[in-house]
Amino acid sequence: MADKTWSLLLDAELFTPISSPGFASSWQSRLFSPGAMVFDENGIIAVGEQAAIEEKWPRSQAAQVISAAGRLVTPGFVDCHTHPVFHNLRAHEFTMRIQGATYVDISKAGGGIRYSVRDLQQASEEQLLHVLLPRLDRFIANGTTTIEAKSGYGLSVEAELKSLRVLQRAAEQHPVDIVPTFLGAHEVPDAYRGRRQAYLDLVIEEMLPRVVEEGLATFIDVFCEDHVFTAAESRAVLEAGQKAGLAAKIHADQLHDNGGAAVAADVGAVSADHLEHTPEHMDSRLLAAQVVPVMLPGADFFLSSPIYGPARRMIEAGLPVALATDFNPGTCMSESMPMMLTLAGLQMRMTPEETLIAATLHSAMAISAHDRVGSLENGKQADFVIWDARSPAELPYHFGVQLVQSVYKKGRLAFQASAARQRT
Amino acid sequence: MADKTWSLLLDAELFTPISSPGFASSWQSRLFSPGAMVFDENGIIAVGEQAAIEEKWPRSQAAQVISAAGRLVTPGFVDCHTHPVFHNLRAHEFTMRIQGATYVDISKAGGGIRYSVRDLQQASEEQLLHVLLPRLDRFIANGTTTIEAKSGYGLSVEAELKSLRVLQRAAEQHPVDIVPTFLGAHEVPDAYRGRRQAYLDLVIEEMLPRVVEEGLATFIDVFCEDHVFTAAESRAVLEAGQKAGLAAKIHADQLHDNGGAAVAADVGAVSADHLEHTPEHMDSRLLAAQVVPVMLPGADFFLSSPIYGPARRMIEAGLPVALATDFNPGTCMSESMPMMLTLAGLQMRMTPEETLIAATLHSAMAISAHDRVGSLENGKQADFVIWDARSPAELPYHFGVQLVQSVYKKGRLAFQASAARQRT
Repeated sequence: MADKTWSLLLDAELFTPISSPGFASSWQSRLFSPGAMVFDENGIIAVGEQAAIEEKWPRSQAAQVISAAGRLVTPGFVDCHTHPVFHNLRAHEFTMRIQGATYVDISKAGGGIRYSVRDLQQASEEQLLHVLLPRLDRFIANGTTTIEAKSGYGLSVEAELKSLRVLQRAAEQHPVDIVPTFLGAHEVPDAYRGRRQAYLDLVIEEMLPRVVEEGLATFIDVFCEDHVFTAAESRAVLEAGQKAGLAAKIHADQLHDNGGAAVAADVGAVSADHLEHTPEHMDSRLLAAQVVPVMLPGADFFLSSPIYGPARRMIEAGLPVALATDFNPGTCMSESMPMMLTLAGLQMRMTPEETLIAATLHSAMAISAHDRVGSLENGKQADFVIWDARSPAELPYHFGVQLVQSVYKKGRLAFQASAARQRT
Repeated sequence: MADKTWSLLLDAELFTPISSPGFASSWQSRLFSPGAMVFDENGIIAVGEQAAIEEKWPRSQAAQVISAAGRLVTPGFVDCHTHPVFHNLRAHEFTMRIQGATYVDISKAGGGIRYSVRDLQQASEEQLLHVLLPRLDRFIANGTTTIEAKSGYGLSVEAELKSLRVLQRAAEQHPVDIVPTFLGAHEVPDAYRGRRQAYLDLVIEEMLPRVVEEGLATFIDVFCEDHVFTAAESRAVLEAGQKAGLAAKIHADQLHDNGGAAVAADVGAVSADHLEHTPEHMDSRLLAAQVVPVMLPGADFFLSSPIYGPARRMIEAGLPVALATDFNPGTCMSESMPMMLTLAGLQMRMTPEETLIAATLHSAMAISAHDRVGSLENGKQADFVIWDARSPAELPYHFGVQLVQSVYKKGRLAFQASAARQRT
């Protein structure tokens, strides 16, 4: 037994998903009560009932003892779908929507993604980093320790590279792990209106080689939707990305069923995201092709849509349904995974335990990171959250507030909530 | 001009509602950009454009200069409808509802309010205070500086008095102002099943005189609803309270139109709360009787109801529509007013400015406290929030996260968000 090199977490209501051997999920989890965990900066060494852990790992031998004091402990959230690299907010569009404009109206008036594109093209790398870092602070303050992060508000060679470089710089400075995704095919930029194929050529022949050459992305993604890219175009983008060494993700079937999920199955995408309108017959194809379905209830909520992703149906089909925020300035301005748990419970009838598994282990699968994060199991990173809560159900139940007490990333304290709540 | 006794707030995007001379609201507000405010512990001395303020109140003369650094400043929220005195949470019922149980099913199985009643009766005053104080911390951490707070999980003479005494003790220890309401008529307790009139007699003849004698409440409230108290019973409770010196509030028409709003107009209640099913012809009666309509969108959201309060209709009718959380362990476990602003925008089509006015000035009217709180106008308390935001629209738009940077109560710093967001 190592001496004075490991830390011991005690007195925890310790919740963790349990990994399944294959792709299909058995939705297993454990709640150790009281639970304990032994870890160091290299990873988790042991997890279990406190009595059993303490027998083998006595607290007198620990370099550090952390008491959760009866509080809930979970893995850090893995937010597997975010768009955090933009400059200014689009709060004015929120007001327009409330006054009756649709998302499509706003886009046609030069707003929406096109506004963010003009705005990002004018911003320097420094300015983008300056606004990105506080967003990462809010992710971690709400319990998220790993995010997938997309480019896609650049839509030119230089602006897409700039977006991905900003992610790389942020990752060097911030404890949140960032898995970068190249989303050059997010929209057809104004300069290419009526010349869709010319823009796709730019994405595939100029942007993609530069992104790969500079090592700026792990995934390639495309917005497959009636008013953006067709299924055939989306497939071409993803296959080009795969050929260049990136893994595929896709925005599929958000507003209509236009074959996005089928593209995901055909190319063997790691995840298919949104899926509000994916037909039931696709479920078995997604399972066979090992595509993780990612639900984004925050966007449905923010667009006041009555239609959410078919989470229950896909759970019954054995799919490892994942949850993410879809954080972006137009359709989901929220860095909060607990908020997504609440929406998944109320709107998609997922139980608290299901929402937690979807937001940790399954979302880690959606970015192929489940070998290192997404559960508190031996060998994984010690990424965990101590909550101001006593049970898993409290996270979706006690909504709209920050219940995080502290966050550990790779075994080190990375965030602590304000203790300075002053009383008279 | 006083020397070194006043504080100066500068560089603010300063938003404030403007009080109307009469009861009907003109929904006026001002955004001073950059704005400044002069205040001391007795109240606000001057508010306006920074240049004009500084001419008269030079910063060299100020005892304290606070820079908002271009951030949004608003009045502290007034949450005019909360039920914060309960012991344990009811997260397990949230899970039951997701699995298909209705709120009425849960109540019939001994859950719901009846669970909280048994639970509170067994808790000591100390235990209740111990769980109430962190809830007040969360109110202030989300920008609320004044709450109305109801009893109503006691339902016996001793347990109702205990609940109100806990509120009194908390108010002495915490910067959040508490306006207490006696809600003995929240439910018929188990011991009085089938003996409704006997319970109402207990409320009116035994509880009420004790509450008044000990000076424990400002308002009396009743839950007027098909499965609880009828319109006639509700009226009797409120009139008894008024006769004893309390002002009236009512839970009206939440699940059905059963005449609750009409009772409010008839007795001249200060507010009528919920109103999801209030018919349109009541709007002019509420206006004539000067009853503030309080919308509680958090409860509609939490119950997955498609029906929200008729806010737009009542705004058009000239009514000073107010917003509150309805914070309670069964139907709205959230201390966050910003979350209510988001729901009011998305679900009730209130603009960001309307939601802010409803959550400050109008909610102050709903507890007859608009002479001292609810706007940043001369003579009122210096209760204000500096937000991690630049415009009013950001508060509903940037949802599910805590955007409060700091909170001042009666001119003194009462809460500051964690600065300790650690980066590697």
